[in-house]
Amino acid sequence: MSSVAMGQQAVPKDKVVLVIHGGAGTILKSKMTPQKEKAYTDALRASLLAGYDILKTGGSSEKAVEAAIHVMEDSPLFNAGKGAVFTHEGTNELDASIMKGKDGSAGAVAGVTTIKNPITAAIAVMESSPHVMMMGQGAERFAKEQGITQVEPSYFYTEERWDALQRILKEDSKAVELDHNDKQSSTKPEWKDDKFGTVGCVALDNKGDITAGTSTGGMTNKKFGRVGDSPVIGAGTYANKQVGISCTGWGEYFIRNVAAYDVAALMEYRALSALEASKEVIRKIGEMGGDGGMIVLDKDGNVALPFNTAGMYRGYITESGEVKVEIYK
Amino acid sequence: MSSVAMGQQAVPKDKVVLVIHGGAGTILKSKMTPQKEKAYTDALRASLLAGYDILKTGGSSEKAVEAAIHVMEDSPLFNAGKGAVFTHEGTNELDASIMKGKDGSAGAVAGVTTIKNPITAAIAVMESSPHVMMMGQGAERFAKEQGITQVEPSYFYTEERWDALQRILKEDSKAVELDHNDKQSSTKPEWKDDKFGTVGCVALDNKGDITAGTSTGGMTNKKFGRVGDSPVIGAGTYANKQVGISCTGWGEYFIRNVAAYDVAALMEYRALSALEASKEVIRKIGEMGGDGGMIVLDKDGNVALPFNTAGMYRGYITESGEVKVEIYK
Repeated sequence: MSSVAMGQQAVPKDKVVLVIHGGAGTILKSKMTPQKEKAYTDALRASLLAGYDILKTGGSSEKAVEAAIHVMEDSPLFNAGKGAVFTHEGTNELDASIMKGKDGSAGAVAGVTTIKNPITAAIAVMESSPHVMMMGQGAERFAKEQGITQVEPSYFYTEERWDALQRILKEDSKAVELDHNDKQSSTKPEWKDDKFGTVGCVALDNKGDITAGTSTGGMTNKKFGRVGDSPVIGAGTYANKQVGISCTGWGEYFIRNVAAYDVAALMEYRALSALEASKEVIRKIGEMGGDGGMIVLDKDGNVALPFNTAGMYRGYITESGEVKVEIYK
Repeated sequence: MSSVAMGQQAVPKDKVVLVIHGGAGTILKSKMTPQKEKAYTDALRASLLAGYDILKTGGSSEKAVEAAIHVMEDSPLFNAGKGAVFTHEGTNELDASIMKGKDGSAGAVAGVTTIKNPITAAIAVMESSPHVMMMGQGAERFAKEQGITQVEPSYFYTEERWDALQRILKEDSKAVELDHNDKQSSTKPEWKDDKFGTVGCVALDNKGDITAGTSTGGMTNKKFGRVGDSPVIGAGTYANKQVGISCTGWGEYFIRNVAAYDVAALMEYRALSALEASKEVIRKIGEMGGDGGMIVLDKDGNVALPFNTAGMYRGYITESGEVKVEIYK
């Protein structure tokens, strides 16, 4: 197995209270410029500190997750909010979900196109509706009623993501000439790489409550209203009283493996540690041909960040404010 | 606990190969006419026989699930396909999902309005796309490309479901005068009852392969593109090499409990039987305030049909063709 768990490499001195990811994929040091690396490191650090500011002043894990994810949603570096990848039709369709371990409440939105911070819409679904999941225009109407910031779809545009779509469309048109089977073009390396970049956060507050959240722009060139694992409770996001999990990667495999909940189940039913359980789930996903990673934080402040891709943007901050940010294996 | 497992009441003489449900809810004998009871019993029997015909001639569990669910989708008696309940806006938005235990492949559609048999669209997503879940108009475009039967939205109209929406809208407008909190109106008994009626099937074929599928019209008066558990792999539907599960009930609780997969996890990680595991999950859902039921079929032909509502339309057929259909506790 090629997954690397940060927890194995450097065990933090004290309890981790906030952990984030900014996506997993073919992130190679050889392809990274020092400027780009610094931009990612700074953004991850800013996200961690935004969440930490909430936690250290006694704020809830839910508010910390929202604050940390906002930083990444608002940054064009990540495939969530501003900087989301483009669908086949040249639009940006965003998904997000959140779950509170304390009471098992949860909220999610799928396929929204006008909500600046989808994680905040997911929180509104959780807090202000009897539902868990809303999709498309219905979700947008609800968010509007809730006074959540709406933007023009053009807000999400970034040149880099647009160019990525144009490259893939060009590749796709070549592929279509050869074979109409969508399965073939979908397994092309570029298609695979460009769909990673989901962001997520798990926080543990001073009441011992855990919240996990995930936000994404999905994958470049996605068609037919495809929904990945990010807005699916149990697949991309899960939290209970023991542990919180947020995933990133090839969504279809994470859904089929019920990846986030499976970590919690292995911990509860088999008494595995956060690290053992999450490595086992990434192993299962790898065995099926899928790839990606996840972040896991348990009630005792143990952290695990396994992935089986070349890299995963990730970091954590401990109770005393020790920050750790990593990108590569 | 108020759940009743059919498996406890009457253990079938030989292996069960197909099990179905037509929804759980406040189904009371006192409110049922003999004519209506006969109509339901006949429809459930027809569904079982349609699936059984496939299995006994060596067909796959996937084809058997599709055939059995078609019968219920095409019947106005169930809240799936023809006879689906109406959304707040007076439309019918359908969800369905399927999962094959053999290889863990899965497919789902959410919020479709023009597909006659949503389970067939879910199968197409599984078999003919690289995706697991598609929503809304995107899913409909895909289904059209795949040559799946489309209908006018008016096809799904039934007078009974329309009248149910009108009753609830009237109730809702009264409730809105009293309180703007949607959570309150959502807990009204009628709202709760009318959202049940999802259909589902789990089949075991002569190769030992299990498939589970679920199809629904969601809940009467649903708003904001609400998505329930039926199209969510892990929540409403799950299958692996050991067991298949299809759920019906208050979807939000089934999503938050990752209900279908939790049965499989309890069996794999805790070595519980299908009956023990499914009763435990229904107990957890009841403890949180949710209700509903599920059907479970394992690789050895053991069946469990627990629910914590007054009734659940349900039935099974064994290897030798023994049919059992029940409605009440």
